[in-house]
Amino acid sequence: MTAARPPEEAARLETVTAVAAVTAGEVLAGYLHCQATEFLRSLRLHGESGSDAEDATEAARLLRRSARRIAGTVHVYRPLTDVDWTDQLRTELVWLSQTLGREHAYAARLARLRGALHRLSGEDDRAGGGLTVGAARAGALLDRQLTLARTRAHSAALQALGSSRFHAVADAVAVLASEVPLAPAARELPAGEALPHLAEQAHRRLAEAVEALPLSVAGLPYNAEALTHGLAATPSGDAPPAEGRQDAPWHQARRLVRLRRYAQEVLDEQQRADEITAEPTLSVRLLGAGQALDRHRDAAEAAAAAAHAARTPRIAPATAYALGVLHADQRHEVEAARYAFGRSWQRLTAAAT
Amino acid sequence: MTAARPPEEAARLETVTAVAAVTAGEVLAGYLHCQATEFLRSLRLHGESGSDAEDATEAARLLRRSARRIAGTVHVYRPLTDVDWTDQLRTELVWLSQTLGREHAYAARLARLRGALHRLSGEDDRAGGGLTVGAARAGALLDRQLTLARTRAHSAALQALGSSRFHAVADAVAVLASEVPLAPAARELPAGEALPHLAEQAHRRLAEAVEALPLSVAGLPYNAEALTHGLAATPSGDAPPAEGRQDAPWHQARRLVRLRRYAQEVLDEQQRADEITAEPTLSVRLLGAGQALDRHRDAAEAAAAAAHAARTPRIAPATAYALGVLHADQRHEVEAARYAFGRSWQRLTAAAT
Repeated sequence: MTAARPPEEAARLETVTAVAAVTAGEVLAGYLHCQATEFLRSLRLHGESGSDAEDATEAARLLRRSARRIAGTVHVYRPLTDVDWTDQLRTELVWLSQTLGREHAYAARLARLRGALHRLSGEDDRAGGGLTVGAARAGALLDRQLTLARTRAHSAALQALGSSRFHAVADAVAVLASEVPLAPAARELPAGEALPHLAEQAHRRLAEAVEALPLSVAGLPYNAEALTHGLAATPSGDAPPAEGRQDAPWHQARRLVRLRRYAQEVLDEQQRADEITAEPTLSVRLLGAGQALDRHRDAAEAAAAAAHAARTPRIAPATAYALGVLHADQRHEVEAARYAFGRSWQRLTAAAT
Repeated sequence: MTAARPPEEAARLETVTAVAAVTAGEVLAGYLHCQATEFLRSLRLHGESGSDAEDATEAARLLRRSARRIAGTVHVYRPLTDVDWTDQLRTELVWLSQTLGREHAYAARLARLRGALHRLSGEDDRAGGGLTVGAARAGALLDRQLTLARTRAHSAALQALGSSRFHAVADAVAVLASEVPLAPAARELPAGEALPHLAEQAHRRLAEAVEALPLSVAGLPYNAEALTHGLAATPSGDAPPAEGRQDAPWHQARRLVRLRRYAQEVLDEQQRADEITAEPTLSVRLLGAGQALDRHRDAAEAAAAAAHAARTPRIAPATAYALGVLHADQRHEVEAARYAFGRSWQRLTAAAT
């Protein structure tokens, strides 16, 4: 996974070897220090945003961004850290990131479903005649349900930010911003050895998860797999378990791609420290693969929201019909995202070998 | 479009030239004679089938098969025929083929929608839990509506077969089976010149129609085009006009592929008569392209049937929801068929040049 050194650099080998004495601990602490600083800055911005909803949303997004990176990094590079301390921090950051992420997720889901309703009404082309009554009602119903969910998530997020649990997380991140609790070994191991080794392990876990995915089916366009359980009877409960079961390994791959991507950010730091020109292809392809799986998750959740809305009592048949079309459309997007991920992964593995 | 003669055949050129004196009229009459004989044989089989529904269905299928070929052939090779006589025959054969085809179409549509409902309920995999209540009710509703339509089509077909209009068609086909009314020129023109020339014209009409299709969009998997009007408001009436407008040029291409395929069957006869080894690739690819467009038509009509059923008064929301999923699923199939046709057409044009 390390970038190959071109032959003309051989003359500079001595310099490189000298610089390569950078330790794993130094690089990892440097990266975590930056992310912790970002976290604290976003937290300050959030506090200062006052009644400006847009600023607050952006600050929360940046807060989650650093929280995910810190949690992901101490996960991948766990053996280099003081695990008693970082395991605890990681759990709390995952809680925070999920709690703060929900409001955004509901807003994005509503925007996605609204967009789909407009697309399905052919509003983008001149021949389109606007929404049907059913589609308009379905839109209003989703609007009501998802706005309510969003408002609740907003209150929960505000409550979380005011809790002592959150203050403890912020204190821990402040520690990270001054001195990262590392394992003693991290201060001795050369960065160029220890970090690629652990990133490689994260890569292997990802590759194994991807190998278990039905990529040969997903690679055939229009395989109609994602909707296979669109009308399957479910024993009880909210979410359609069959679709959820089908989606779960893809969601897991999404999380592993993200971990691998954060691991790469640390490696890129190390390569900068070691004055090796980082190969950007892998980072870009990991980003592409991750985006396909983000789209997979978003479409799957939007499809579930449409199915959930269709179970609202006393809705009109036309509304239910539109929600059925919407559900199938989003499952179609799920399938498209799997197809896109398959191609993305092919390019990624081709670049890595 | 004619098959190239390998160089080693040069020695046999004299023989070939002698045989090439076969006239266009002879080849065309030979082909039409065979099809007319098939038509009359199927008609006899239909009469003898009595109460055996399966035999009657098969006989009707064969009857339509020859009727379509005769009508198509006298269309493509029109200038070689006595047009006053063949234009009239063609109109009547198209009427007959449509009247007899409806029963089969309704049966096939119901089978397609039932199959889709089962697929969507995940019945094929062990995790599947059977149909939802809505899906089961949607199936029952479609069953009722399409079985009723099928029964009506069956009566209409029987009535048509007993009509004096039909007897006139059968008489005309009997004429074709003994002596084909040709244009005087057809008895003089060499088959190897006149027939490929007219087939080429049919090919050009097809190529122009295909060029007007949005193949660059259709060639991108998951372009979501076919469902763009899935929820578009329609001023009034039964069929969703926006989807119908989008599908029409593809249906037209389907008819032109079929004409080109029948034209090729006559050319293959001519090449056999001229002792040229026919190149089967083109026929096979025309068949493949036609099958993709058949699937396009079938899926589009099944989607329309699901949408139509959803407008039944007083259905339960769960039924309407299932019909919405079914509609979107079939429009997804429409899109898949366009994608398949695009690839098929690429191979076809690659083979022709």
